[in-house]
Amino acid sequence: MTPFRYEPLGQDDAARRGRLHTAHGTVETPAFMPVGTQATVKAMFPEDVAATGAEVVLGNTYHLMLRPTAERVSGLGGLHTFMRWNRTILTDSGGFQIMSLSGLRKLEEHGVAFQSHIDGSRHLLTPERSVEIQGLLGSDIQMQLDECVRLPAERKEVERGMRLSLRWAERSRAAFEAMDGPAKGQALFGIVQGGDDAGLRVESAAALSAMPFEGYSIGGLAVGEPQDVMLAMLDETLPVLPAEKPRYLMGVGTPHDIIEAVARGIDMFDCVMPTRAGRHGVAYTRFGKLNLKNARHADDPAPLDPESDCPAARDYSRAYLHHLVRCGEGLGAMLLTWNNIAYYQHLMKTLRTAIEQGRFAEVRAELGRLWAKG
Amino acid sequence: MTPFRYEPLGQDDAARRGRLHTAHGTVETPAFMPVGTQATVKAMFPEDVAATGAEVVLGNTYHLMLRPTAERVSGLGGLHTFMRWNRTILTDSGGFQIMSLSGLRKLEEHGVAFQSHIDGSRHLLTPERSVEIQGLLGSDIQMQLDECVRLPAERKEVERGMRLSLRWAERSRAAFEAMDGPAKGQALFGIVQGGDDAGLRVESAAALSAMPFEGYSIGGLAVGEPQDVMLAMLDETLPVLPAEKPRYLMGVGTPHDIIEAVARGIDMFDCVMPTRAGRHGVAYTRFGKLNLKNARHADDPAPLDPESDCPAARDYSRAYLHHLVRCGEGLGAMLLTWNNIAYYQHLMKTLRTAIEQGRFAEVRAELGRLWAKG
Repeated sequence: MTPFRYEPLGQDDAARRGRLHTAHGTVETPAFMPVGTQATVKAMFPEDVAATGAEVVLGNTYHLMLRPTAERVSGLGGLHTFMRWNRTILTDSGGFQIMSLSGLRKLEEHGVAFQSHIDGSRHLLTPERSVEIQGLLGSDIQMQLDECVRLPAERKEVERGMRLSLRWAERSRAAFEAMDGPAKGQALFGIVQGGDDAGLRVESAAALSAMPFEGYSIGGLAVGEPQDVMLAMLDETLPVLPAEKPRYLMGVGTPHDIIEAVARGIDMFDCVMPTRAGRHGVAYTRFGKLNLKNARHADDPAPLDPESDCPAARDYSRAYLHHLVRCGEGLGAMLLTWNNIAYYQHLMKTLRTAIEQGRFAEVRAELGRLWAKG
Repeated sequence: MTPFRYEPLGQDDAARRGRLHTAHGTVETPAFMPVGTQATVKAMFPEDVAATGAEVVLGNTYHLMLRPTAERVSGLGGLHTFMRWNRTILTDSGGFQIMSLSGLRKLEEHGVAFQSHIDGSRHLLTPERSVEIQGLLGSDIQMQLDECVRLPAERKEVERGMRLSLRWAERSRAAFEAMDGPAKGQALFGIVQGGDDAGLRVESAAALSAMPFEGYSIGGLAVGEPQDVMLAMLDETLPVLPAEKPRYLMGVGTPHDIIEAVARGIDMFDCVMPTRAGRHGVAYTRFGKLNLKNARHADDPAPLDPESDCPAARDYSRAYLHHLVRCGEGLGAMLLTWNNIAYYQHLMKTLRTAIEQGRFAEVRAELGRLWAKG
């Protein structure tokens, strides 16, 4: 069994080039992880996800614990086998979606009791149970259970959530080690909280750094605050985290968010944006976003990007994509999702190469110019 | 330009083995044509449709004339280019869907005036305009405009529709030849009508046989009548049609319908059943139909058919398909549609081989036994 390991490969200013070694292969960083909420990257075949260059996908503990359940996935050989993805899988802890999706919920020191948004059934998620579920799924990279306080919020409330998350971090770590996570080559990341308060962020990051996590996540950002607040929180937090561990900015984001976060030393990202946009007629391209619903595409025989090596971007006319989107045809969502995931992976590769070549600042400026040109 | 041609390859009793030569390749018959209503076989990439062995797909004139319009498709290089399908395309005439889908409609000798089900816009479809539209689409095999009377209906009404369809057949043929359809390698099929009245069916078939169509369709069946009525109509009609021309049974059907119709000498079929069933959680397999929504599949690691050469049938567990269908995930529809089209193509190949080997009766009985076993 390969032990989980972050291998630093180089740096360009604060931007980091690295490689994760997991029980299911390697992940070149900075990396973007397509979201596979319900054990599927929506509207894509797993082979096509892999062919875009994605080396890790995300599974959602909240969704999977409710349906088909962690025990069922385990009985079927684990999430990798179940969803036919033999590369790395990262899972969240379930906390975020309990807050955003479930009906009645009751948060206590012990954990969070909630009702399923699907059938109203009652469940309890504790730090220990979250680690157990992620273990049953066979996740390569687990997240601790945390409480993500919605912004804007009173400082007192943010502080309370951050301190609870720290106590849950300790319990999560103990549970993870008790089930031999490290020996199985698995990783558990601690999650920095603290809202938009720099002092709380630093305190959270420092406390977590003292615990032996395999990596660190920045949670509770990209939840509605302006981009400059998010970036300011990264500026405060990242210097406190151990440089030899990977850093994951949860739920981020737009291509511009990603570039600015990579510039500050973030290694991993996930976001529903490319998949969700694909189901709503929006294509990400090197020249910016295109809304394929727009009538101006109706007679355009050009593909989204003739130079792409993704068939969805290269082989289908904008006129055809427009038609499919207007008709609500599934193939429209399939092609645009594929294009968008391919675009995000291409972007990450561009950033990795730029860091390797010491050209990150230049490439960052160049991408801005391309988007401005539209 | 290859002239359209039907090449008879052999017979086993009344069951026929043949080959269509069209401007876009050959089609081994008996053939099943996946339905690509709005210029897409729903939830499938065109490459995957082709890989199942499908050599011809169907496009719907009614849908395409409304959106994106025939003129637009023509301006973009024709339907083959538009939908990235470089094999044979058959189009219907638009008549059937005007009857079933449009709002207000007014049928006259000249043609049928109707309102779009999409935006209420007014349109007129005549035999000449239908041929023109199918020409603009670049269809390899066109259908004449006909009137399909819904069953049950009074004999008088069925007779009126059949005679109107015959007059429209003559006008369609004249329009098709005026636009040099035959010289372009295209085909125009006449459509036999006459409801469930054997006398009317024979009269329709005889009158059409006297016109120089490249092939003949049997319309107005599989519209709700019992299977034995449909088969009785085939028994009456087929001996009247010229043996050297291909015969297409429109809108049929279940695997059992297809086998019984092939036994009587039908060469071509189309049906929305495999694609529609795929979007509703139903899989066609060698052992019958499976409803993947059913809880008994929830823990089943077996694929739909380990011996299939279709990845959707061979590589994904029933448990995973069950999960996807229960969650309403697009990948469920993608995989089941793919499986179903692959199954239908496999069935047709089995029937073609059986005819070649003079084993059709045996294979027909064997398939019935497999389904009964379930």
